[in-house]
Amino acid sequence: MHNIKQVFTQLFRVPLAEVLSDAKHGDHHFFELVTTTIVLDNGVEGTGYTYTGGKGGYAIKAMLDHDIAPELIGRDGQDIDGIYDFLEWHLHYVARGGIASFASSAVDIALWDIKGKLEGQPLWKMAGSNAQSCKAYCGGIDLMFPLPKLLTNIQSYLDRGFNAVKIKVGHENINRDIERVNAVRQLIGPDIVFMVDANYSLNVDQAIEFSKAIESNDITWFEEPTIPDDYLAYAKIAEQTNIPLAMGENLHTIHEFGYAFEQSKLGFVQPDASNCGGITGWLRVAAMAKDYSIPVCSHGMQELHVSLISSQVHGGWLEVHSFPIDEYTKRPLLVKEFRAQAPNIPGTGVEFDWSKLKAHKVA
Amino acid sequence: MHNIKQVFTQLFRVPLAEVLSDAKHGDHHFFELVTTTIVLDNGVEGTGYTYTGGKGGYAIKAMLDHDIAPELIGRDGQDIDGIYDFLEWHLHYVARGGIASFASSAVDIALWDIKGKLEGQPLWKMAGSNAQSCKAYCGGIDLMFPLPKLLTNIQSYLDRGFNAVKIKVGHENINRDIERVNAVRQLIGPDIVFMVDANYSLNVDQAIEFSKAIESNDITWFEEPTIPDDYLAYAKIAEQTNIPLAMGENLHTIHEFGYAFEQSKLGFVQPDASNCGGITGWLRVAAMAKDYSIPVCSHGMQELHVSLISSQVHGGWLEVHSFPIDEYTKRPLLVKEFRAQAPNIPGTGVEFDWSKLKAHKVA
Ligand SMILES: [Mg+2]
Ligand SMILES: [Mg+2]
Repeated sequence: MHNIKQVFTQLFRVPLAEVLSDAKHGDHHFFELVTTTIVLDNGVEGTGYTYTGGKGGYAIKAMLDHDIAPELIGRDGQDIDGIYDFLEWHLHYVARGGIASFASSAVDIALWDIKGKLEGQPLWKMAGSNAQSCKAYCGGIDLMFPLPKLLTNIQSYLDRGFNAVKIKVGHENINRDIERVNAVRQLIGPDIVFMVDANYSLNVDQAIEFSKAIESNDITWFEEPTIPDDYLAYAKIAEQTNIPLAMGENLHTIHEFGYAFEQSKLGFVQPDASNCGGITGWLRVAAMAKDYSIPVCSHGMQELHVSLISSQVHGGWLEVHSFPIDEYTKRPLLVKEFRAQAPNIPGTGVEFDWSKLKAHKVA
Repeated sequence: MHNIKQVFTQLFRVPLAEVLSDAKHGDHHFFELVTTTIVLDNGVEGTGYTYTGGKGGYAIKAMLDHDIAPELIGRDGQDIDGIYDFLEWHLHYVARGGIASFASSAVDIALWDIKGKLEGQPLWKMAGSNAQSCKAYCGGIDLMFPLPKLLTNIQSYLDRGFNAVKIKVGHENINRDIERVNAVRQLIGPDIVFMVDANYSLNVDQAIEFSKAIESNDITWFEEPTIPDDYLAYAKIAEQTNIPLAMGENLHTIHEFGYAFEQSKLGFVQPDASNCGGITGWLRVAAMAKDYSIPVCSHGMQELHVSLISSQVHGGWLEVHSFPIDEYTKRPLLVKEFRAQAPNIPGTGVEFDWSKLKAHKVA
């Protein structure tokens, strides 16, 4: 047993190379990265983190500093489940999702990093050890890219060694989306895997209409066609169309995932360890996905999720997100023969390059 | 049209006269009050607020200061619905409940305060104008009070002019709760309204067993028998017992309330304007409650909810909570002939006494 001696947090606003847009979250100029470093009384330390599209970072840090860190000091740093459950109830009144999910995730990831270091185990082994690599696709925040730029961008994914791509949809005029889907399929040919993501911008009827209009393009999944809160709406869309549905990035509690599994007729699920309770939360969702025979995929944070998806027998596709978190780590994502490779070093395998992040620190 | 010129926020940690405990949130030593004052370009200002049981206040203030206030400056301060909907999408990725619901609520209440001042209308008239008073009950955070103290406390409610009371339940040993319920009913006699609140500490079987054991005591409602996330569990309890169920203080989005109305077989609903989107959010829940023929009640913040419940044709019971917010306002709750009286002055009618709060300001 090693008690937690110190917890320190940092907030970074990391600029994007260019402004990125999707159908619901508007323009992204930067992303926020909140790191939490936990030090045990034996000197071993681990770092966890979460990220946002640009809003909420100060609130996450405030919750970590004022409501969480003081409660962690003196607790057994190896009691990951105990701390997970404690935080759930400690924060419950101001939680059940939202900022508390992001803050708790950063803590949990730090504790897994410590666990790996203490046990000399990499994350892919600790989390399930099924394999050391997984399928991966590139997804852009490319809704506002003009068509030629969209195609150039897709080509750049293929040039980087990927055989699967995803684009944003959700334009006011559905024909514009149909045209883009057709053009991308024409560019990539029949053998490349292709998904679309509407960021919940459509209603049920629009989603069904759009799905039918693009189904001849062999679409692997239609992501977040409509608001994630409406579990039954997903089922209605799934029943009327041939393209499997995917969601998960906006579900934060195990209860929300439970309703989605039960009611939404999903083809894929995409929990994000940065906002559904860290590695513990992600693995709880993965266990549920197995019961429902649904491949477990991910959202964002590829440098971490690569280990989690690889570890699972029913691991699905890793999203390689366009927020460049891994430009600021010492181990950017490695892809070999179309498969993303999990780091094989003790801990989460995600080590930040603090010297690169320094310039973007805001709190 | 008057644009928002300034938004300023304050966080107070207000001590409680004694430590208060319930079955799930542990000990409360203080409550947190976050105020948001909005000033229009014509100088008219309004104050909104939210509160917590002691966690999350810094995060709420951080979100207001960093993610919300800068976006409000320059917007039409009278466009309450527009700002409500904007904030919902602006914060969505880090929201769908949690801290964002609390922060948005404080903004919305400030805008209603401004609306009332601009229109010369009190809240009870703006919100529905059904009546200027409503039924009210006193609820204690009294789980750990020894039985004699519990009874003295209940007697003090009656002495203060109330004819309805609520106690906490959820002891490890169910017999202790049964004994307390019996003793309270014996003390208050048959004519006083009596509710119990388990703060979601029981599972379905325990809740059914307890409900059957106390049903001869004429219990008006059984509040939060089990976790609010499990809508169908509520229905199972409701089907097996005679005591109507109540919940709402832990539901933050209109979607969550939608599922509860549809699935939980509630007898009463208790939205809290401080955490379900302010007055706009509370009224949207109230409209839904009307469709389902369920009386709309409240949680906490009696000094504000008195106007909301009074305003509704299907208004139910006002909770008079034991966090002493209204000791710090200029108009503590007035009860006449067992009915709580809504303030009749322009705005929300809640004016803080900043000189009293000053000593408890922490940010
Ligand atoms: Mg997505
Ligand atoms: Mg309650």
